[in-house]
Amino acid sequence: MLLRMSSLFLRTLREDPADAEVPSHRLLVRAGFVRRAAPGGYTWLPLGLLVLDRVAAIVREEMAGIGGQQVHFPALLPREPYETSGRWTAYGDDIFTLKDRRGADHLLAPTHEEMVTLLVQDVTSSYRDFPLILFQIQTKFRDEARPRAGVLRGREFLMKDAYSFDLDDVGLAAAYDAHRAAYQRIFARLGLETTIVSAVSGAMGGSASEEFLASTPVGEDTFVGCTACDYAANTEAVVTPPAPAVTAEHPPLEAHDTPDTPTIASLVDHANAHRLAGRADWTAADTLKNVVVRAGGDLVAVGVPGDREVDLKRLGAALGADVAMFDDFPSRPDLVRGYIGPQGLGLRYLVDPRVAPGSAWLTGANEPGRHATNVVSGRDFVPDGVVEAADVRAGDRCPACADGELTIRRGIEVGHIFQLGRRYTDAFGLDVLGADGKPVRPTMGCYGIGVTRCVATIAEQHHDERGLVWPRAVAPADVHVVAAGKAGHVQAALDLAAELTGRGLRVLVDDRAVSPGVKFTDAELIGVPTIVVVGRRLAEGLVEVRDRASGTRADVSLASVTETVLGGV
Amino acid sequence: MLLRMSSLFLRTLREDPADAEVPSHRLLVRAGFVRRAAPGGYTWLPLGLLVLDRVAAIVREEMAGIGGQQVHFPALLPREPYETSGRWTAYGDDIFTLKDRRGADHLLAPTHEEMVTLLVQDVTSSYRDFPLILFQIQTKFRDEARPRAGVLRGREFLMKDAYSFDLDDVGLAAAYDAHRAAYQRIFARLGLETTIVSAVSGAMGGSASEEFLASTPVGEDTFVGCTACDYAANTEAVVTPPAPAVTAEHPPLEAHDTPDTPTIASLVDHANAHRLAGRADWTAADTLKNVVVRAGGDLVAVGVPGDREVDLKRLGAALGADVAMFDDFPSRPDLVRGYIGPQGLGLRYLVDPRVAPGSAWLTGANEPGRHATNVVSGRDFVPDGVVEAADVRAGDRCPACADGELTIRRGIEVGHIFQLGRRYTDAFGLDVLGADGKPVRPTMGCYGIGVTRCVATIAEQHHDERGLVWPRAVAPADVHVVAAGKAGHVQAALDLAAELTGRGLRVLVDDRAVSPGVKFTDAELIGVPTIVVVGRRLAEGLVEVRDRASGTRADVSLASVTETVLGGV
Repeated sequence: MLLRMSSLFLRTLREDPADAEVPSHRLLVRAGFVRRAAPGGYTWLPLGLLVLDRVAAIVREEMAGIGGQQVHFPALLPREPYETSGRWTAYGDDIFTLKDRRGADHLLAPTHEEMVTLLVQDVTSSYRDFPLILFQIQTKFRDEARPRAGVLRGREFLMKDAYSFDLDDVGLAAAYDAHRAAYQRIFARLGLETTIVSAVSGAMGGSASEEFLASTPVGEDTFVGCTACDYAANTEAVVTPPAPAVTAEHPPLEAHDTPDTPTIASLVDHANAHRLAGRADWTAADTLKNVVVRAGGDLVAVGVPGDREVDLKRLGAALGADVAMFDDFPSRPDLVRGYIGPQGLGLRYLVDPRVAPGSAWLTGANEPGRHATNVVSGRDFVPDGVVEAADVRAGDRCPACADGELTIRRGIEVGHIFQLGRRYTDAFGLDVLGADGKPVRPTMGCYGIGVTRCVATIAEQHHDERGLVWPRAVAPADVHVVAAGKAGHVQAALDLAAELTGRGLRVLVDDRAVSPGVKFTDAELIGVPTIVVVGRRLAEGLVEVRDRASGTRADVSLASVTETVLGGV
Repeated sequence: MLLRMSSLFLRTLREDPADAEVPSHRLLVRAGFVRRAAPGGYTWLPLGLLVLDRVAAIVREEMAGIGGQQVHFPALLPREPYETSGRWTAYGDDIFTLKDRRGADHLLAPTHEEMVTLLVQDVTSSYRDFPLILFQIQTKFRDEARPRAGVLRGREFLMKDAYSFDLDDVGLAAAYDAHRAAYQRIFARLGLETTIVSAVSGAMGGSASEEFLASTPVGEDTFVGCTACDYAANTEAVVTPPAPAVTAEHPPLEAHDTPDTPTIASLVDHANAHRLAGRADWTAADTLKNVVVRAGGDLVAVGVPGDREVDLKRLGAALGADVAMFDDFPSRPDLVRGYIGPQGLGLRYLVDPRVAPGSAWLTGANEPGRHATNVVSGRDFVPDGVVEAADVRAGDRCPACADGELTIRRGIEVGHIFQLGRRYTDAFGLDVLGADGKPVRPTMGCYGIGVTRCVATIAEQHHDERGLVWPRAVAPADVHVVAAGKAGHVQAALDLAAELTGRGLRVLVDDRAVSPGVKFTDAELIGVPTIVVVGRRLAEGLVEVRDRASGTRADVSLASVTETVLGGV
């Protein structure tokens, strides 16, 4: 491959695009890899498409390596199968739906569990046809509420989705492990540093799932690690160890006038100042904060210790529904804002695992300006259940080893693997003939990689203040030859580029009639790993070989430059 | 590449699918290349995807060969640019439209003239950036009124669309010729026999255009050739030479009672039986047939000689609108069905070029049961224009050489090339700086290949009664090794397959525990070009090499089979 900058469809920009918040967005646009075409929709220019294709090829290769067979489903599908699985409504506004000319409902499929189940039902019949791994690399469409960060979170993107079918749980576990290992190889080859974290399954359904999160400060996901063990989890999936039940007897519930104490801080101050229940050592952790949210269509009250915030993302993940703070208090005079207590509350009431059976709390008395002490769980109120609603903080005790403390990082989800089980094979009644002549229902896994997102994530992890710094395996070219100087240098650069191309290298050559400064700036912005400058010292038979990542430079004789470059690649 | 049938995701069928009308549909489904997933939507199974990818790779290679640079636009796009170009409405029901969660109108883009024009406006600025060819290979969606014939006419398909930008007409002609030549190479490599025919541009706009039609009896397009010259055209694009004006004087118009003569045949019989205007030699060609159609929102009457039918497809192409027969005569009592004449008709009236100025006709008198003779064009009626509405027939005089006769064939449109001109650069005001410092407006061409359709068309042109017969360049594998017989043969077949794979061949090996008969039937259905049978004579060190296309068979020693196969590939 030989690309000449003089004819390459490329315009680099010196200024950041106005709408770009994150480095990958800024640099991929400035270096001419992508251009915005629509809200959340990007056009891939030639250099960008080369990277995207290389990423896809690595994904395809590793999927084939674990026995995956590539297929391709339609993106536009009728409503019925998604109705059968329940996903037509489960995804809500996140999917694009449309009607065809006959008025029939269709969607642009988010993933293809339904179709792959129907296909396997159609094509297989016997236990001999299993295990089976099918995958595709396909454009997906999602009606993101807030498309952002360029191709990191767009409305149209390339995704690899894979599906495993096995006859039993042991088979599923093996398929899951094979994908897990393949994903580790894929991300390593892509130059992505990722952490595997426990995750919640969300609308996909199923039991076990893990995410591959690439650490970057701009990541939308927050995940925890442990200072003592190898526990790692998306904060959404962190399970709080339940506090032990309290068996001590408590005095009876007592209500107090606590005027102007609608916040935890004001309540604690008041309680200490007035020595409520004879104590002056009240802290926020002694109070029970009750928060009312809308979850799906219902109102739910959630109780957490007053020193914690309710994390709506965690709560939503736990409830499997979109969650929003309730704020229409005028419509519910029974809910006394700032003074809500669980006792006698006319709402479904869920508590944080720290709210142990038998524990006593300072909480609202459901009257304006009044709180109550010795409100005891199991005596004065009975929770309808336990829920992960409180925020996770650095320093929290690790739920796995109970020894270390949690640390918190941000990351981008580049892969997600699920043990689905039989949710979809049950929904469509997929059975095959077992070895014993009886029908057996296969169990499924599903496994996704955001191919487009990987490109942006690589850019997040591999850039500096001057531009992109592509890992060799995905770089748009192996070598960037820069003709820096007089006209004769262009011919020498083209000759060298031809020689390098002849040796199997993918070469970008800057043969434009612009200044060397412009060319160097563009070369560093574009980020090809090796830059060869054909310039001033050409008369002495020397060219300069630069390593984009380390910045090291060496003068090399023209006769040996090809070997030098090949040695580095 | 080594594919083992024992684990390949494949089920071949002995029976034709019930909904399959054409050979490619029947065979691609039966051989396990595609499966229907939705109305007009097909899933590509592993063998089919291999062929699709090879076709796409050949297209990509030849496009790069003429300097095309690959990009990738979003498929989901906002309404505005298509509103600007007028295509939002021009495509009518054929495009899928949808609203996003904010209620904004979007479409699934049929092609990308608008976006590529905006992109070039964004990226280029000077005459130095031209000429330019951009292309993409992308999934397209069209809301086909009648998806049919499997992947031949689906609602979702892969298309290569290319766009050229030049500064002047000479440049556009050169880009057009380069694409024309590249398309000839592509179709030759794909094993497709195509004819280049003159075409009409339709909703795309622009001036010159040609189609690449692959001859097959199941083609939806009809095209003509000439027995004497190299003229070839889509019947929609055949231009009828106008009949010379008639200067002779005609007697005055005379109306006659012609009861029960609503058809041309009954009218001619009556006219001869009653010696209308003193003649007994009336033929259908002497009558003027007037047909009322709805074109877009309007009613139009069209006059053609009575020995011709109105071809709605030709008429629609000529009018640039969807055309349907008008049949709501009760709503228009002024239109006397079966007795319509152009004289005094209250409708826009267009005539076939054969209806010469000054020519006299037997036609309707606009009264039930009455016709008129000596109805003279230009005297008794004045056409509002000339239109290509009459059907084209084998034996018609060639419009190009006026010497030969037209022949008619059916074909599938696999490619279409257009000289668009400045329709889109005008719409978006794309100007760049010219060499003389003044702005210059680029002129465009656009060029499409139906990649998915090519696969089906290859199957139409390359099959026999036993199955598919893939050309080597696009076959899912180079060799199909069949283990026919005892268990030992499977190991020998796998060893041979591994050896062939090691020599760079793409191998499918049938290692299943099924009868040799089933394997032979499947091998012929799947259509890999070379079949190697490891069977009965293995003990003598012999295997059989079969050529799928010719059916020739030869026993070859195991030692030399690799060289034999390599020699044939």
